[in-house]
Amino acid sequence: MIKVSVMYPYAAGVRFDHAYYRERHMPMVKRLLGAACLYYTVDKGISGAAPGSDPIYVAKCDFICMSIEAYRAALNPYLQEIWDDIANYTDIQPVLQVSEVEVERSDA
Amino acid sequence: MIKVSVMYPYAAGVRFDHAYYRERHMPMVKRLLGAACLYYTVDKGISGAAPGSDPIYVAKCDFICMSIEAYRAALNPYLQEIWDDIANYTDIQPVLQVSEVEVERSDA
Repeated sequence: MIKVSVMYPYAAGVRFDHAYYRERHMPMVKRLLGAACLYYTVDKGISGAAPGSDPIYVAKCDFICMSIEAYRAALNPYLQEIWDDIANYTDIQPVLQVSEVEVERSDA
Repeated sequence: MIKVSVMYPYAAGVRFDHAYYRERHMPMVKRLLGAACLYYTVDKGISGAAPGSDPIYVAKCDFICMSIEAYRAALNPYLQEIWDDIANYTDIQPVLQVSEVEVERSDA
């Protein structure tokens, strides 16, 4: 099982519409991924380690998938469509990481 | 519900013992957190956006908690103990982010 993490770095003055991201963008990507994505998570950055400090990421999400090949095969035809939608909620260029899920959830 | 993400930035030549982290360190922190932490996740970095590229983080974890106050109150007496254990599995200084959980899991 793998996880694709998409993270939006914080900087002063950046624009990010969390409601659009959560209600429109993420469900759209999930529809495009279909069965290649088991589920996703969405986070809104609050702070860094110190209370009141700036978060590293304004927002981030994880797509939990059976394999990176399935993820890439599913999204490949829609990369332009997804990219075009990003301008609807942010001016941040996201960074992306692929991880192996070592512990999906510790209480499972 | 909040999420504390602890992330270990990749750099060439860094040391990270994923087995120790997964089997020893993370269960220890969960024991110290007690009921303040609902569950945690553990990831091992594979790559960045491009296949074969370096990951942003060698490893990362999320602690899913009811509140940041409960997290801080639970860990505060043990910060030195936790910090001392980090040297047992890595020479990386982790970065930390607190997030609000907007979608815990999309299929729930």
